[in-house]
Amino acid sequence: MARDPRYDILFEPVQIGPVTARNRFYQVPHCNGMGHQMPEAHAAMREIKAQGGWAVVSTEECEIHPSGDVTPYVEARLWDDGDIPTLALMCEKVKAHGALSAVELTHNGYTASNLYSREVPLSPSPTPLKYGYPLQARAMTLHDIREYRRWHKNAAIRAKRAGFDIVYVYAAHDLSLAMHFLQRRRNQRTDDYGGSLENRLRLLREVLQDTKDAVGDTCAVALRFATEEFLGEGGVQNAEAKEIVQHLADLPDLWDVNVAAWYNDSLTSRFGAEGYQQPFTAWVKQATSKPVVGVGRFTSPDTMARLVREGALDLIGAARPSIADPFLPKKIETGAIDSIRECIGCNICVSGDMTITPIRCTQNPSMGEEWRKGWHPEHIPARKSEKRVLVVGAGPAGLEATRALGQRGYEVMLAEAGEQLGGRVLKESALPGLSEWRRVRDWRVGRIEPMPNVSVFRGNELGAEDVLAIGADAVVIATGAHWVRTGIGRAASAPFIGHDSAQVFTPDDLMAGRFPDAGPVLLYDDDGFYLASVLAEVLAARGHEVHYVTPEDTIAGWTANTLDYRHIQKRLRKLGVHLHTAKTLEAFDGGQARLACVWSEDTLRLPVSSVVTVTMRLPNDALYQDLLARQGDWQAAGITQVRCLGDAEAPGLIAHAVYAGHRFAREFEAAPGENGDAGDVPFRRVRQRF
Amino acid sequence: MARDPRYDILFEPVQIGPVTARNRFYQVPHCNGMGHQMPEAHAAMREIKAQGGWAVVSTEECEIHPSGDVTPYVEARLWDDGDIPTLALMCEKVKAHGALSAVELTHNGYTASNLYSREVPLSPSPTPLKYGYPLQARAMTLHDIREYRRWHKNAAIRAKRAGFDIVYVYAAHDLSLAMHFLQRRRNQRTDDYGGSLENRLRLLREVLQDTKDAVGDTCAVALRFATEEFLGEGGVQNAEAKEIVQHLADLPDLWDVNVAAWYNDSLTSRFGAEGYQQPFTAWVKQATSKPVVGVGRFTSPDTMARLVREGALDLIGAARPSIADPFLPKKIETGAIDSIRECIGCNICVSGDMTITPIRCTQNPSMGEEWRKGWHPEHIPARKSEKRVLVVGAGPAGLEATRALGQRGYEVMLAEAGEQLGGRVLKESALPGLSEWRRVRDWRVGRIEPMPNVSVFRGNELGAEDVLAIGADAVVIATGAHWVRTGIGRAASAPFIGHDSAQVFTPDDLMAGRFPDAGPVLLYDDDGFYLASVLAEVLAARGHEVHYVTPEDTIAGWTANTLDYRHIQKRLRKLGVHLHTAKTLEAFDGGQARLACVWSEDTLRLPVSSVVTVTMRLPNDALYQDLLARQGDWQAAGITQVRCLGDAEAPGLIAHAVYAGHRFAREFEAAPGENGDAGDVPFRRVRQRF
Repeated sequence: MARDPRYDILFEPVQIGPVTARNRFYQVPHCNGMGHQMPEAHAAMREIKAQGGWAVVSTEECEIHPSGDVTPYVEARLWDDGDIPTLALMCEKVKAHGALSAVELTHNGYTASNLYSREVPLSPSPTPLKYGYPLQARAMTLHDIREYRRWHKNAAIRAKRAGFDIVYVYAAHDLSLAMHFLQRRRNQRTDDYGGSLENRLRLLREVLQDTKDAVGDTCAVALRFATEEFLGEGGVQNAEAKEIVQHLADLPDLWDVNVAAWYNDSLTSRFGAEGYQQPFTAWVKQATSKPVVGVGRFTSPDTMARLVREGALDLIGAARPSIADPFLPKKIETGAIDSIRECIGCNICVSGDMTITPIRCTQNPSMGEEWRKGWHPEHIPARKSEKRVLVVGAGPAGLEATRALGQRGYEVMLAEAGEQLGGRVLKESALPGLSEWRRVRDWRVGRIEPMPNVSVFRGNELGAEDVLAIGADAVVIATGAHWVRTGIGRAASAPFIGHDSAQVFTPDDLMAGRFPDAGPVLLYDDDGFYLASVLAEVLAARGHEVHYVTPEDTIAGWTANTLDYRHIQKRLRKLGVHLHTAKTLEAFDGGQARLACVWSEDTLRLPVSSVVTVTMRLPNDALYQDLLARQGDWQAAGITQVRCLGDAEAPGLIAHAVYAGHRFAREFEAAPGENGDAGDVPFRRVRQRF
Repeated sequence: MARDPRYDILFEPVQIGPVTARNRFYQVPHCNGMGHQMPEAHAAMREIKAQGGWAVVSTEECEIHPSGDVTPYVEARLWDDGDIPTLALMCEKVKAHGALSAVELTHNGYTASNLYSREVPLSPSPTPLKYGYPLQARAMTLHDIREYRRWHKNAAIRAKRAGFDIVYVYAAHDLSLAMHFLQRRRNQRTDDYGGSLENRLRLLREVLQDTKDAVGDTCAVALRFATEEFLGEGGVQNAEAKEIVQHLADLPDLWDVNVAAWYNDSLTSRFGAEGYQQPFTAWVKQATSKPVVGVGRFTSPDTMARLVREGALDLIGAARPSIADPFLPKKIETGAIDSIRECIGCNICVSGDMTITPIRCTQNPSMGEEWRKGWHPEHIPARKSEKRVLVVGAGPAGLEATRALGQRGYEVMLAEAGEQLGGRVLKESALPGLSEWRRVRDWRVGRIEPMPNVSVFRGNELGAEDVLAIGADAVVIATGAHWVRTGIGRAASAPFIGHDSAQVFTPDDLMAGRFPDAGPVLLYDDDGFYLASVLAEVLAARGHEVHYVTPEDTIAGWTANTLDYRHIQKRLRKLGVHLHTAKTLEAFDGGQARLACVWSEDTLRLPVSSVVTVTMRLPNDALYQDLLARQGDWQAAGITQVRCLGDAEAPGLIAHAVYAGHRFAREFEAAPGENGDAGDVPFRRVRQRF
């Protein structure tokens, strides 16, 4: 297909200091949980983006010295020359596809706990470390400042030797010394580096100049800069940020601007729509003649083109959209707009970094698997036979299995019991704040519909007999799961008393429109992720007084891994939801619930007229079990395998279901080793040298 | 020195199946945060224990298959043959010193989140994963059970090939499938593997037999078994455990017994004294003819010898005591009892594993540094010159610097302002539950006292003039830190209103015996570790009504990393302490405190007559600053360097102070590379192969 001329502007080259970006698509630095630990996996992931058309592909944060060691988080490292080969590998791969490579150098100051290096953390002024480790940072002496500048310069030189085209100075996300010196709340210095804005800005200016002096001849020097922290005058505020941009103006070759901290920058779609950062960053371009890149979870080429035309941005920055679709630029370039796999803003990608594991993506199951399984987001091996596959259930697992098998060329029959495709995605995306999650369904349905080799049967609830009669070689059961009503979950292995009352509801009830009668509701969350907090919104909006009860000590604790945690805490309080932590649900009699304290013998009684439990799910695997019971009939029916996938096998995230569906399709009739597997280990691994 | 004959019994060899332990000292499996990621560092750490006289040296948990992947925790791995060399390295090092090596094979079932492998987790029955990851485990089919047995057998064979003498089957800590099948709360199966004890025990018995069949000819097969979970009938209880031991009796070659989960097994000294497990495990020996090893943070040779004589244990198990003093057996053997560096039960070692970083130890600063810095717990290079060192301050940093410099043979003058040595250790060990922490001081003072080259000056508060006059070549300032009264810390960068009231106290006040008047007290914790909870005990014991307030969402959150968290929650409730989370202290007027909610605009007023703040510390570095100001006078005074160490540089854990003192002593006059350093990186590193 041909490119829509409206988007031509996105494919203009942009000069960045001594280098030229081939177009306006810029993958800004983002963490990935692989970093220095998994060099080939990291390089392969970045390579795919270069191949997908991004003009610039950046690393994550790159530590410059052991005193800024962010272990256990796994980022890039340029502590010494021995670290060069790892990043040179990435540069080589990225360059091979015509993209520029960028590295985000930083010293994390008091946001580094130095757990691995055991060095004393550094800060403008004495302060406890940010992330709870029981150690304080020392105030940097003038000698320390000179040393820090030397480390940064040496790291920049190493970056150049590794082959980077753009070298960052980092003053964003509250994750760098250069930013900590800017912040009044962190900088109580009385020397030339504290007090006035000019003084607080001194270090950033010096490091920018150092970097230009060291590598500016062939490398562009970018500044990643947070224009707002939303912390009042203790933090960087837009007003002062304007002064800073005016002061530095054309010193950096590129301004990469966003808001801080990370939980404000990478808002989930529940808490921020595409372009939510524009009010805080759009003014930067007026204060500099240098190109500006900004982010806002952009997936719409119209929005992108408008922002460039309006003079708000020169380069369209993207982290998450480039994860969900590494080929986003190519798809715009080739006019294949409809095939863009749009980021849903769920931040499962972030949870990889947070849990110190390789990055994952709900929409893009190949993310993180490029090297170890050899998976490509766009390509998939062609079918190996004429086999026909029946997929039962059109939730995320069934849709992705169907789509990927269909892409391979297999004949696929997709049978869905209901009238609509999407399964849990359809239901959950109807909840407040989650509408973008529907993209998981829409993208897959959009791919499947034109496939001549895929037949979709709606309103088809199949029994074992039907499956045996249908004439499929392989059967995929992806029939989802349902929430239990008993309260059983992590905290309880037996049902609570009164769980069989008509006034006890599950998330499935609420999503199906079966709501409690008026009156106070006890919302019992032993799941700990997003869903209970979303249902609290639903119930509050319906006028209920809501008692949110959890056996955990925190509310929705796992949402810290998707950066939602803080936003959820605020929202629940705003809604007036009553919060009860460390309590298990023991009994409900229709008018009162009895709760037991997790840490004592105390009991609490709440006057509530209904209960909603969000604890665990059980697979809808009746069909699968029936088929297993009739295994003797498979051969006669021509069936060689029956597989249960996704929530029907093990209830989890939508990301797990998509991955399971994709994996099945990849592994179907694959040769050993074709997906990186060897023996019992289903992927390639990195080994340590010794 | 000669061995005390009372301890001869500890040096009798013990037959364990086909192998023989040279004595009764047995380093049971323990995590270390290095595992498969840092092969040489791990092997060197284990080697030192073999050298120190332990008869058996074990690995940590060793994963047998990607579906039992405990990432982000770093343990051992035998997923495939490629994992053998890493562990063969350990076996070789351990064997070289005449010890046996043991490996703890396990499949973690639903306690593995499979974050790295992305495999579907396994469990006897469907269940959410234990550690909060939003995914559920599927119920194992009979095929899964056969596969699991095959994986375990293959891992055992690999273990034998790696060179292990003892291969474990693991049913402890709630961290293995074999244990999950035993638990009624997890096993709702209706087949041959669920229901009756015989059925729930079937899998464990099968895996034991498989392992004996596979490697039992040359390897001993040990069973690590939890005899009590303290969870009532949902968990393993002592009564049922007795039946299990009777059933299995002589099937394993060795019983390694303890209580579960880890937070009950590895109690800190605050919550359990030496030998606290005996009531739950002492009976095991009566039910089997095979040798029994048990743990209880044993550091007293008298206790050890008594337990063997009484027939309670055949082998003295130790994890933490072997970390604090890898040479504990050798010291008993050579009659050097007084030189045993006794574990203080602080569990900083555990925090390494918890934070996914290499193991550390408060008492033993060389722990985790054996390979990367070449540090040995007993040996240290001799002095390189006749230089004299002045150490100012006899807290943990000053004492350790003095001791280690003294061991090197340097002439050291230790000047302490007070009459007693020990600094903060002395103060904190006087608090309830922390008395064993005094061992940090006592061991060092005990080493220093007989050193002819060390002079200790008590009651000597030195000024800069004194230091310049004293005739030292190098000066170490280790003058500690003090707690601020202002409430400034992580949450606040400005003082609260009323912080200058006479009824505002710091931990230093309380530890010095300056207590609030009678009346309700607000205890403000923005530290998040142990101290505020200990002070809550102090205040409650003095009859105060205590309001424990913290800006965090949890109480003493970091204590999860030392396994204290649950015990603290229970104790505070038992004491009737009122708990207020997510609140900052804004103002105190002598009769009332005003708190602000972290997540909303809400305000809470508490009627309290005094406030105790536990937020952050500031270095006591006046002397250091005075000396820096007089740098021009150093040369005339013969001083070549002045270094500030420990809390006086950057307030932290006692472990940080000890490490800082030790490091200074090691690095003093050391040649480049002597401590593993190269350029700006002060230790050897592992690199990835690619």
